[in-house]
Amino acid sequence: MSAYPARMHRNGAWPLLVLLAALQFAAPAFALDPLPSWKDGPARQAILSFVNTVTDPAATGFVPEPDRIAVFDNDGTLWPENPMPAQLAFVLDEIKRRAPAESALQADPVVQALLAGDTAKLLAGARHDGLMHLLALTHAGMTTDEFRATVERWIESARHPRFNRRYDELAYQPMLEVLGLLRANGFRTFIVSGGGADFMRVWSERVYGIPPDQVIGSTAQVRYDLRNSGPVLVKTLDQVFVDDKAGKPAAIHQFIGKRPIAVFGNSDGDKEMLEYITIANPRPSLGVIIRHTDAGREYLYDANPGSSGTLIEALADAPGRGWTVVSMKDDWIRIFNDP
Amino acid sequence: MSAYPARMHRNGAWPLLVLLAALQFAAPAFALDPLPSWKDGPARQAILSFVNTVTDPAATGFVPEPDRIAVFDNDGTLWPENPMPAQLAFVLDEIKRRAPAESALQADPVVQALLAGDTAKLLAGARHDGLMHLLALTHAGMTTDEFRATVERWIESARHPRFNRRYDELAYQPMLEVLGLLRANGFRTFIVSGGGADFMRVWSERVYGIPPDQVIGSTAQVRYDLRNSGPVLVKTLDQVFVDDKAGKPAAIHQFIGKRPIAVFGNSDGDKEMLEYITIANPRPSLGVIIRHTDAGREYLYDANPGSSGTLIEALADAPGRGWTVVSMKDDWIRIFNDP
Repeated sequence: MSAYPARMHRNGAWPLLVLLAALQFAAPAFALDPLPSWKDGPARQAILSFVNTVTDPAATGFVPEPDRIAVFDNDGTLWPENPMPAQLAFVLDEIKRRAPAESALQADPVVQALLAGDTAKLLAGARHDGLMHLLALTHAGMTTDEFRATVERWIESARHPRFNRRYDELAYQPMLEVLGLLRANGFRTFIVSGGGADFMRVWSERVYGIPPDQVIGSTAQVRYDLRNSGPVLVKTLDQVFVDDKAGKPAAIHQFIGKRPIAVFGNSDGDKEMLEYITIANPRPSLGVIIRHTDAGREYLYDANPGSSGTLIEALADAPGRGWTVVSMKDDWIRIFNDP
Repeated sequence: MSAYPARMHRNGAWPLLVLLAALQFAAPAFALDPLPSWKDGPARQAILSFVNTVTDPAATGFVPEPDRIAVFDNDGTLWPENPMPAQLAFVLDEIKRRAPAESALQADPVVQALLAGDTAKLLAGARHDGLMHLLALTHAGMTTDEFRATVERWIESARHPRFNRRYDELAYQPMLEVLGLLRANGFRTFIVSGGGADFMRVWSERVYGIPPDQVIGSTAQVRYDLRNSGPVLVKTLDQVFVDDKAGKPAAIHQFIGKRPIAVFGNSDGDKEMLEYITIANPRPSLGVIIRHTDAGREYLYDANPGSSGTLIEALADAPGRGWTVVSMKDDWIRIFNDP
């Protein structure tokens, strides 16, 4: 097979890649603003300075590309989590859609509370207990393919109650620019979220450019079954893993196996991964907290104890830890892309 | 910040990338043999034909790059698992190194059996019970950094008992060529192994070019702890997940979140992932079984029931499933690279 197609070989590409790299460095015409939705200020400068340092081969803080890993919380960091996280909106809509035909759902007290509109109770306190029960009702007992189809159908029809737009159109434009900036500089970008991995993976690649294998979230076991129609994986309620608080650095280790150098979060649920990535890291590191300070364009809520998105402990630690605090109101020119 | 460094932007690179791609297709000088350690025959041809199909934009079986995912078992597929898997050799050496100073180890009956050289018993039958106990003794109670350092130290000093070479020099050369061929054609290559993820990640990037986040293996929980010296993750024995048999397709879903299109294995422990990837897959798919048929250059063992690397059920299924069966003796020109 000596006439094997040329496209199957990479060795010949190296001289051209070297040329390409040289031209990239030499061409000032490419120097467009990578963060056009960020006002100039300490937050923007901290991000740009960090990227400059770790990508400069002459800098003592240079980090080789394989180690350029950045992690992002999702709800409240990459898109809104108010008035409730999108996944909870999905749960609510799914329960409403299914309840008329399913008596087991009608008899469930948590479902009854949810159908009565008592969502505040579901979000308060140790929110994951109630949330996980509802997640279980809507996230188990079907195959992974069936679940994906359900989420896809929902996201086509659902609209955010305040902004009246599809949820997948509400990614924060300034954060999309950060994702693009980092990836253009050799970073790989991971989501590390309390949200369900299977839920986020349906749209993460399309919305954020983050492929499913770079989405780390809450999970439960799936069970392999070879059916006549083919192999399936059935979602179960066994061994639920909640990817929040101290679970986040643990999940980062299990999925990535390396210590990232950049982290973006917005609540106390992100405190441990902020610590893990920025304290005593032999590499330069960047810790960023997004504050929801903009009641007019988005929401103002992060100082409320016990609510979704509470930011008290991490904010108190920020000055001592050197974490960059971003005010959505003051640091972002726009919140969303244009409709 | 209008004078932002040019290297932080990607847009300018596209015209050159297009040129680069065009030159790659046009240059016959690059058409070297991508699988020089494979004899021409059905196995080699099946691999090359599959790569040709999924990378040909004009073929009905064309697969976009983000969906080109290939998974590989490790022990017995990418490197030897005889006379025992490398990780078990690590365990044995670690126990021997530590036992003189640790009375708890000396009192452990499994440790006693191991120190007495009764490794056959540890590998026989439901091997993971005994193996997991020994793994626990040597894989828990320390930080992930301490474990990594222990494995690194071991791999520097350990030698394979038959080949008298470092374990990380014994990757099968024909499989390294397959990994390179696939990656040169836009595939991402994952390990999906019953071995410990933390063990494999120490050397997977250096030996196989597979970064830690593409290494899926057996795991147990790690516990986050913020110490005065900095944050650590402590390895525990909780929630052990054995990445074998039906666990493999489950782990593929949890870590990759997409159905791969190519799979390489060598034992009945790989049967379920062979099924998952090749049965009723809407994409073209490739299932390959490596047979240990070469007593002279490697080992001949895969027909022994109840032993490590048993290959009976998957081999019986192979003709009906369309799986490609590779004979190490007949299909491979060389097993290892030159010392």
